[in-house]
Amino acid sequence: MSDVVSIDPRTGQAVEVVAQETTTAEVDRLCAAALAAAPGLEALGRSGRAALLRTLADALEARREDVVAVADRETALGPTRLTGELTRTCYQLRLFAEVLDEGSYLEATIDHAGDTPMGPRPDLRRMLVPIGPVAVFGASNFPLAFSVPGGDTASALAAGCPVVVKAHGSHPATSQLVFDILATAAGKAGAPDGTLGLVHGVQAGADLVAHPAIRAVGFTGSVTGGRALLQIIERRPDPVPFFGELSSLNPVVVTPQAAAERGSAIGGELVGSFTLGGGQFCTKPGLVFVPAGPDGDAVVDAMAEAVRASGAPVLLNEGIAAAYDRIAGGLAAAPGVTVLARGAEPEGAGFEAAPLLLATSARGLPPQVTEECFGPVSVVARYDGPAELFAALDGMPSSLTATVLRGQGETELPLAVSEQVRPRAGRLIYDAYPTGVAVSWAQHHGGPWPSTNTQHTSVGTTAIRRFLRPVTWQGAPADLLPPELADDYRAIPRRVDGVLELPR
Amino acid sequence: MSDVVSIDPRTGQAVEVVAQETTTAEVDRLCAAALAAAPGLEALGRSGRAALLRTLADALEARREDVVAVADRETALGPTRLTGELTRTCYQLRLFAEVLDEGSYLEATIDHAGDTPMGPRPDLRRMLVPIGPVAVFGASNFPLAFSVPGGDTASALAAGCPVVVKAHGSHPATSQLVFDILATAAGKAGAPDGTLGLVHGVQAGADLVAHPAIRAVGFTGSVTGGRALLQIIERRPDPVPFFGELSSLNPVVVTPQAAAERGSAIGGELVGSFTLGGGQFCTKPGLVFVPAGPDGDAVVDAMAEAVRASGAPVLLNEGIAAAYDRIAGGLAAAPGVTVLARGAEPEGAGFEAAPLLLATSARGLPPQVTEECFGPVSVVARYDGPAELFAALDGMPSSLTATVLRGQGETELPLAVSEQVRPRAGRLIYDAYPTGVAVSWAQHHGGPWPSTNTQHTSVGTTAIRRFLRPVTWQGAPADLLPPELADDYRAIPRRVDGVLELPR
Repeated sequence: MSDVVSIDPRTGQAVEVVAQETTTAEVDRLCAAALAAAPGLEALGRSGRAALLRTLADALEARREDVVAVADRETALGPTRLTGELTRTCYQLRLFAEVLDEGSYLEATIDHAGDTPMGPRPDLRRMLVPIGPVAVFGASNFPLAFSVPGGDTASALAAGCPVVVKAHGSHPATSQLVFDILATAAGKAGAPDGTLGLVHGVQAGADLVAHPAIRAVGFTGSVTGGRALLQIIERRPDPVPFFGELSSLNPVVVTPQAAAERGSAIGGELVGSFTLGGGQFCTKPGLVFVPAGPDGDAVVDAMAEAVRASGAPVLLNEGIAAAYDRIAGGLAAAPGVTVLARGAEPEGAGFEAAPLLLATSARGLPPQVTEECFGPVSVVARYDGPAELFAALDGMPSSLTATVLRGQGETELPLAVSEQVRPRAGRLIYDAYPTGVAVSWAQHHGGPWPSTNTQHTSVGTTAIRRFLRPVTWQGAPADLLPPELADDYRAIPRRVDGVLELPR
Repeated sequence: MSDVVSIDPRTGQAVEVVAQETTTAEVDRLCAAALAAAPGLEALGRSGRAALLRTLADALEARREDVVAVADRETALGPTRLTGELTRTCYQLRLFAEVLDEGSYLEATIDHAGDTPMGPRPDLRRMLVPIGPVAVFGASNFPLAFSVPGGDTASALAAGCPVVVKAHGSHPATSQLVFDILATAAGKAGAPDGTLGLVHGVQAGADLVAHPAIRAVGFTGSVTGGRALLQIIERRPDPVPFFGELSSLNPVVVTPQAAAERGSAIGGELVGSFTLGGGQFCTKPGLVFVPAGPDGDAVVDAMAEAVRASGAPVLLNEGIAAAYDRIAGGLAAAPGVTVLARGAEPEGAGFEAAPLLLATSARGLPPQVTEECFGPVSVVARYDGPAELFAALDGMPSSLTATVLRGQGETELPLAVSEQVRPRAGRLIYDAYPTGVAVSWAQHHGGPWPSTNTQHTSVGTTAIRRFLRPVTWQGAPADLLPPELADDYRAIPRRVDGVLELPR
């Protein structure tokens, strides 16, 4: 048994022992409980699970001050950000309640028996069913919205899947507090025992992913961590779906016209974006293409000025702080890279990091600058004309986002850039910054590897699709069908004999 | 260079050299051509690609006699089956044209800018875009419907993805002929060069899966083959989605009431199902639970009689014939397994196989009987009461299908069986046999590993979903949006501000 310790990143000191690392036997017990809870959670039905999600949101909001205080002490993200994150987390839970009420997510489809060019067709009825218990890995950088009560948990519970969360070692106290709040509320809302579980420790996470009861894994973290979990999954007798959000560079293109019209403003805004949350967003703009010449200089000068005026943020944990020193230091020392500006140097004993602005040329971009680095660093790549820009964009890794900052009414170059980056990005942003990720029906937070490894991802209402699988009933007597597939059920959108029908 | 040889399974003799194994350089050239074709194929738009698919179907139908003759010579599946399979293949191509016309598959979603509980939300518009060039692995047992012109190719082209097919070594001549027909027709329909490619040989298949231009892989084959391709994918710098259909036992439960009412009829029908196509369907019923006692005896006696009257089918290739001898022989010799009946013994020099009916007890089911065996063999497991049945079902691997044969109006036991098997099956069949797979909007052909390894699978209209990925446009000027995301586009179903809207 090993202690699970909560560390204050502002001091680097251990504050409390939160729990013991979860043993293999206890992981087994939690997974078995999750499996046993699955039929009961599904039997709550869409309305029962919508009520459950709303109850969880209410319970979390009722403890807002306690949760924010613990999370701030463990992450140093500050009460303003954490208050907003809690609001977002509750919004996510309630949005999935709406998804359940609306019912499209079931993809209910009925093909009545009939003749086809292939001969007679039997009665076929298809809808999505819960995949089974889900393992969720909390992320270091969102102690709420991508951790115990986050989007993975909300979407899995909505789908009807019990959840066992692996608490991130960076905020075990927050994880434990929020888990206790949610588990109590879930019990009051009628969810079966075992609907929610929590494990602590690296070995417990590995045990969880290997456990036969676990039917899917949601993960937000590093490529290395994701690859390690994928290897565990590949060794299972029955590999299960792994939904990973892993790494993202988030390139930004400033067009010459944008630089000419509002270069200084853009420079300041870019620094605001890449230092937000200590530069620890997966959507941090890590590489900014700025035109060569005086207009581009204005962007870069404003960036340098803003970085010099920046304080040293406290990073989330010792590992991230050490990686920042190593990777940002390596970037700064790479051939062809120069240091444009540094922010305040760390003074305290905690995990502080000096903001850093680097510059290079888009021609012959050093490969190091295309790798994600958590923390307050970004690289400016100066480009001389569209050909140089497009050649550089062609070498970009896939990202969650790609951003174009345009001139007033400009379309030609932005369209060409969009076409170039679309195969490498999940969200195309115009005249805004990538670090805000609204939760909505139309949101998407993914992209080809390494940003994510699957087509369904963790933000937006389609996140629920990850934890569902299709079942088709063929020739089933009416008594054996789920209610949503009965002929006279009309409360949700369905496709009947090929035609989409709205509820009535 | 090695010859790609077409073998006649009825004689075991090589008939012709079809091609040379595709070299690594040629795979590279085909993949580059596919990548170059991608923008043009997407630019055809939904209507252009619908026209393309219909042209391909017409072209294939116009050569029906030639294609059936070559396929029969290479597979011995017989002209009747192959004529039906060609009809099904053309139907699939045309069904995906309908899917394009209808447009729901894009999941077009618009959230206008506005205030939310999380603060202001930007304008967000999401839809699915083609994932890029797709590698398709043809299956031995469906030389048309799951090979060059099959559902993977149809759904990938519909999605807007160029396709490079790995021809199955069991029917290279059919693959080459059909490829030539399709490639010519695609050119006439305005598809860019490189829209379709074909490779022969095991190494070429491995090269294809490893190629950077390939963005997804569709595979129908063995668990061993699927695992090998997954390992190649895991070694890529950018692992891509792998959609595998691998193995399926397809258990059938005959209820005591069904056995009492129509035991003999069921017995004959079951043999018809498990010997259909030489027992080489992925939906072959490999294990049949029959009640103990005289009513169950009637089922088994009828099965044994039908098997004894069965001829020896010609299997697809030497590998399948050898595996049948090894696996079916091993099953017959397993402790607790007895041989109930044998069909005609092979007489010719080709890949013939004797049909085989085995019996065992549902109590202490030998593990060998839960593994898929291609060819005309099935195992009857006798059960004594529901407890014994449910305990045995609990140990079943996941399958594409699970079937219940009920008594007239019977619901209680069928419902209990359905609930027991639903976590382990993708299609629940009542009072019919699993070997027919209608292609329709509500069809599903998948299940947890080992039946498939993903949630979207190869049969039914949602097969297209495998080859698409979401992109969200944030704050995009109208000129930069795809037509389907413009405010005034109303030709397809869309979700606008959370509300599903039908076309008008």
